[in-house]
Amino acid sequence: MTAKPTCPAPEALGPTITIGEILVEIMAEEPGDGFLQPLALIGPYPSGAPAIFIDQVAKMGGAAGIIAAVGRDDFGEVNVRRLARDGVDTSAISRSASLPTGTAFVRYRPDGGRDFVFNIAHSAAGDLAMTDPVRALIERAGHLHVMGTALSIPRAWPILTAALDTVKRRGGSVSFDPNLRKELMSAEITERFATVLAATDLFLPSEAEIFLAGEAADVDTAAAALIARGVAEVVVKRGARGATRYASGSTLECPAFGVTEIDPTGAGDCFGASYVTARRLGHGPEAALRLAAAAGARNVTLRGPMEGTSTLAELHELMSSGEEA
Amino acid sequence: MTAKPTCPAPEALGPTITIGEILVEIMAEEPGDGFLQPLALIGPYPSGAPAIFIDQVAKMGGAAGIIAAVGRDDFGEVNVRRLARDGVDTSAISRSASLPTGTAFVRYRPDGGRDFVFNIAHSAAGDLAMTDPVRALIERAGHLHVMGTALSIPRAWPILTAALDTVKRRGGSVSFDPNLRKELMSAEITERFATVLAATDLFLPSEAEIFLAGEAADVDTAAAALIARGVAEVVVKRGARGATRYASGSTLECPAFGVTEIDPTGAGDCFGASYVTARRLGHGPEAALRLAAAAGARNVTLRGPMEGTSTLAELHELMSSGEEA
Repeated sequence: MTAKPTCPAPEALGPTITIGEILVEIMAEEPGDGFLQPLALIGPYPSGAPAIFIDQVAKMGGAAGIIAAVGRDDFGEVNVRRLARDGVDTSAISRSASLPTGTAFVRYRPDGGRDFVFNIAHSAAGDLAMTDPVRALIERAGHLHVMGTALSIPRAWPILTAALDTVKRRGGSVSFDPNLRKELMSAEITERFATVLAATDLFLPSEAEIFLAGEAADVDTAAAALIARGVAEVVVKRGARGATRYASGSTLECPAFGVTEIDPTGAGDCFGASYVTARRLGHGPEAALRLAAAAGARNVTLRGPMEGTSTLAELHELMSSGEEA
Repeated sequence: MTAKPTCPAPEALGPTITIGEILVEIMAEEPGDGFLQPLALIGPYPSGAPAIFIDQVAKMGGAAGIIAAVGRDDFGEVNVRRLARDGVDTSAISRSASLPTGTAFVRYRPDGGRDFVFNIAHSAAGDLAMTDPVRALIERAGHLHVMGTALSIPRAWPILTAALDTVKRRGGSVSFDPNLRKELMSAEITERFATVLAATDLFLPSEAEIFLAGEAADVDTAAAALIARGVAEVVVKRGARGATRYASGSTLECPAFGVTEIDPTGAGDCFGASYVTARRLGHGPEAALRLAAAAGARNVTLRGPMEGTSTLAELHELMSSGEEA
């Protein structure tokens, strides 16, 4: 037990909410470089990091809602239907009158890298506003998960800060997945990052992302500095190499499950969602880490970023049959 | 022979140019309704009615250039490379700094209709400007083909009117393919339509579109009224039912070639391009109609809107082996 009050805030306080982009993903069937000739593709897959996160929260049995915008097209519909089917509160998803649902074309390169063609910045994903349903969802939220991708959506920021204030005022908690590359850290994004981090109870970076929070010699030191600054928990995601959970006076290691990777997109989002949800549902850090590792592992075994979100039963099945790497 | 000077203007005066949208098309492999679950798709195919038109002009051996904009992404690249490979002057295609290349997802319904998801209005397709290369292309053009889809691109209009004025002043000619549905005819589009029609030498409507030019009891009467208003030639495209060419004092019928339709998108654009180009290269109306019918027919036998553009050799091959419907 640590000296700090446990967090995240319990499920009873209200749903876990997040804010940000909903997209469809279109995947190339064969690896290769880019999209310079007609290729076999498959899609539209529901996608967007905040959408994958919140779908996983709901599928595990957590109360969940998302503030987002889609176009008035089939790509918006495929997302809203999926989220609703999986139990996400979609009341704060608006339909842009003129902008199309965001799209991301992805092709894996033979070297394991990825080529993208995006339409996000000029899509409905950015067409957010503080509507009545958005305000209502924020007012009843118990936990806010900030996905770093939302920091670069100009119209998301006032909603995000309002949600930070309201959730904190209600005694709720905040988790933060940076999900940002260093090159995207403009002065404005850096300032927003600091604002969110100052309110964060649970920080969920990758090894590279933890250094966005401050210079440090290594991950352990960076995590210790964050704990000293008041972050209750830091969970560093290392993909196939597992995860480490830091809290005041304790460090926990959790190995990854050995699975055959089909499609890594969304694994980190599922990991974070399962960790947050397990904690909010009353699991201790160790059990939550195991569930999170299972959720990340199961996600990569299925093609499509949101196709591998998991119910608790599916996680338990993987945990009982899966081998740790 | 008619009393009017023959038109279009001969090839020697300068290239055929057009203005408007460049897109990629992504096609569903299987017919069905919409895009509400992950489907097998194929793409990106180079597309956009003006782009298909100008590619067909160049492939037949006509001098050709297009004023358009694409994004700085693979979808722009796939289009520019294709057009350049086929001999189109791509110097007046600009690369939008921020907007993505336009996209059109298309799925054929079992009833033969089509479902679309578009991103055109908020794509690079609309990001046109009167740059130096655009001005230079207009200054050397011998013929302007107006694709009606461009009438609804706000930033295309000043460029289009400048091109109309310049081409006419140089003794060049103008063709006009309405390519517009009646529902899109706002007051502004109607006014633009009238402006273009007043400068048109060769009008290339479908049976439905000819009535956009003025009320009439039937196609013959509508065509006669256009000829009386100074349009030198009216070629009515009837798809698989052939085409009719109206001029002062003469009417020519041309049957379609009997082919197995794989993908009808682009057939009308190829028909128009081949007719314009054949005429500009010195062919009489009858020979030009046969080449146009062959180009329309060949286009529908190949999947992808621009995959079925044809060289003269390919048209002659179809004409010698093909049967008229």
